Amino acid sequence: MLAPVLTPILPMSAINLKQLAGQLGLSSSTVSRALRDSYEISTATRERVQVMARQLDYQPNPYAGSLRNNVTKTIGVILPEVDNHFFSSAINGIEEVAQQNGYHVLIYLTHDSEEQEKSVSQYLTSGRVDGILVSLASGTRNISHLEKLKKLEIPMVQFDRVSKKLNTATVTTDDYVSGYKATEHLIRAGCRRIAYLLVSENLSIGSKRMQGYLAALHDHHIPYDAGLVLNGSGPNDENLVRIRHFLRQNPQVDGIFASVERLALSSYHACQSLGIAIPKAIKIIGFSNMETASLLAPSLTTITQPAYAVGKEAARILFHAITKNKPVLPAQSIELKSELVVRASTQAGSQPTNARFVEVCQAVQAVGF
Amino acid sequence: MLAPVLTPILPMSAINLKQLAGQLGLSSSTVSRALRDSYEISTATRERVQVMARQLDYQPNPYAGSLRNNVTKTIGVILPEVDNHFFSSAINGIEEVAQQNGYHVLIYLTHDSEEQEKSVSQYLTSGRVDGILVSLASGTRNISHLEKLKKLEIPMVQFDRVSKKLNTATVTTDDYVSGYKATEHLIRAGCRRIAYLLVSENLSIGSKRMQGYLAALHDHHIPYDAGLVLNGSGPNDENLVRIRHFLRQNPQVDGIFASVERLALSSYHACQSLGIAIPKAIKIIGFSNMETASLLAPSLTTITQPAYAVGKEAARILFHAITKNKPVLPAQSIELKSELVVRASTQAGSQPTNARFVEVCQAVQAVGF
Repeated sequence: MLAPVLTPILPMSAINLKQLAGQLGLSSSTVSRALRDSYEISTATRERVQVMARQLDYQPNPYAGSLRNNVTKTIGVILPEVDNHFFSSAINGIEEVAQQNGYHVLIYLTHDSEEQEKSVSQYLTSGRVDGILVSLASGTRNISHLEKLKKLEIPMVQFDRVSKKLNTATVTTDDYVSGYKATEHLIRAGCRRIAYLLVSENLSIGSKRMQGYLAALHDHHIPYDAGLVLNGSGPNDENLVRIRHFLRQNPQVDGIFASVERLALSSYHACQSLGIAIPKAIKIIGFSNMETASLLAPSLTTITQPAYAVGKEAARILFHAITKNKPVLPAQSIELKSELVVRASTQAGSQPTNARFVEVCQAVQAVGF
Repeated sequence: MLAPVLTPILPMSAINLKQLAGQLGLSSSTVSRALRDSYEISTATRERVQVMARQLDYQPNPYAGSLRNNVTKTIGVILPEVDNHFFSSAINGIEEVAQQNGYHVLIYLTHDSEEQEKSVSQYLTSGRVDGILVSLASGTRNISHLEKLKKLEIPMVQFDRVSKKLNTATVTTDDYVSGYKATEHLIRAGCRRIAYLLVSENLSIGSKRMQGYLAALHDHHIPYDAGLVLNGSGPNDENLVRIRHFLRQNPQVDGIFASVERLALSSYHACQSLGIAIPKAIKIIGFSNMETASLLAPSLTTITQPAYAVGKEAARILFHAITKNKPVLPAQSIELKSELVVRASTQAGSQPTNARFVEVCQAVQAVGF
């Protein structure tokens, strides 16, 4: 029996195969074959089973047959969000490989909610897809729903937002090194009170990027202040309120390291509404694959992940398992390198008077006076 | 028989139902019922059909059964792109209604390609979903693949990028009025040589927004110049090259009206790389639901569509059809209103010397001199 809490997701029969078999005093496999009109079962038994099935309103799962034979020619991609350029690029990489293999790609959104992720996973247990690529919701604490899918031997590869507890291959980027580099870049630009905007403590990306942040502070003899770590796992409007409040309470903050794209944007909105000048008063760096990073005022310094390659590699591992009928192994995991792209939002701050004069001249020139 | 070009998508039997029926000298519906062990068919006929089906290796479509009973509890959303804030918001509206109905949402991307859209439609003919929401690819000229889905009586609602040729309900926004308003706004800001960046002539949004542009030019006695209409239906990098080339060839252009979000961003990139000042030399307005419009340098004036509401209304019409088992009718179509949000990218240009002086003072102040 499926977990009762999830029953609304799938249309359920009054009874399942096992219960039907129990009523008939037969094994589930005999009943299953009788329902499929197998020659191995006598006509009398077939008839008896089919009559009872109708009487008890037994509904066979219409997808159960396709699970075993990879006939769906479909993979499912479970994503926390699409309004994030990392994921939209990763999808492109995934689709390229899927097309080469003659497969369709279905996208399921969890909106960063553990409940939604559970519901989608439950839905996929019925064999609607031949394989799954998953990037975890930031709200996910318990991964038993994914373990259930793994037990059904549906090939699964995690990417970017992964849990090492799940015994499968992962495709990630060098989050620790990138977190270190981003923090060090802010320190070199003159920041000493650097806030860290955390997406989730549960996710590998949250903890690894933060470990890099802590290590860089340590190596540069800047004491760690837990009060400068801000939880940004809520929706955008909630994060904006929280960042504004935080910046008002902590006027000494001179740098922000946003561990995901939307937290960098919320920081921009917060600074804009509070009249805090970037990079003069606060420098900002964020993980981001935004095409518009260079168009922002000021242009945003980013840690840019090889999103397309992440999607492609994850799909490659998955299709290897699907087409060769082999399990996905943790040993197949890959880590790719991200890139620090320096732009105006982290431009070094304490300028000599001379430089300021040049800046004024440029400003005057810019407005065409 | 399914179109041969698409056969790799679905696992196919050696023969289809019609061919099997032909071999048996029976109607397809008799064969179908015999295969399902219907009481309406005699035991002898059932037996004969089932034996022949096995001999000819007939494989029933594993999904066909679910089509008639709405048991997939799933709707499919066919989208041109996700890297567009209109669609990511619309998805949220769709998912809200789907959740209320206990349904899952599957997202299929066409990447604005007619071929991909055909392939996805073909895939959906097998009854994997109980209903379809579709926003057409800009490359789509022939809609026979969608007509085929309609003939299968899968409820379908089009939204935003629609074709009136398809006899179904549509949820759109007031594209003509918005196109008019956007153009008039540029004219009032002083523009006389306004380029129109077209996403597709085939799509309703392309033609209606452009009709609005033409009407506004006409009403303000500005002659229409076909040379100022630029095709932007390609990928982003291609559009960027085209816009750069266009702006170099047409230095007299003083306004750009981008009919979709990514064309506005490509225009920004083009102006940035050519050193063209926005809004001083060229003013830009674009259809966009970008959360970052206000963070761009300069902030972007937009026509903002009620994307969330568009998704929600389209889903509502669809679920009405699914749950009441009624057809979707063109008369159910809805048109929602978009909003003009004025920002810096269209700030009036020809300023008196006085105003310029104020601007210089502000610039000097801004750099803290």
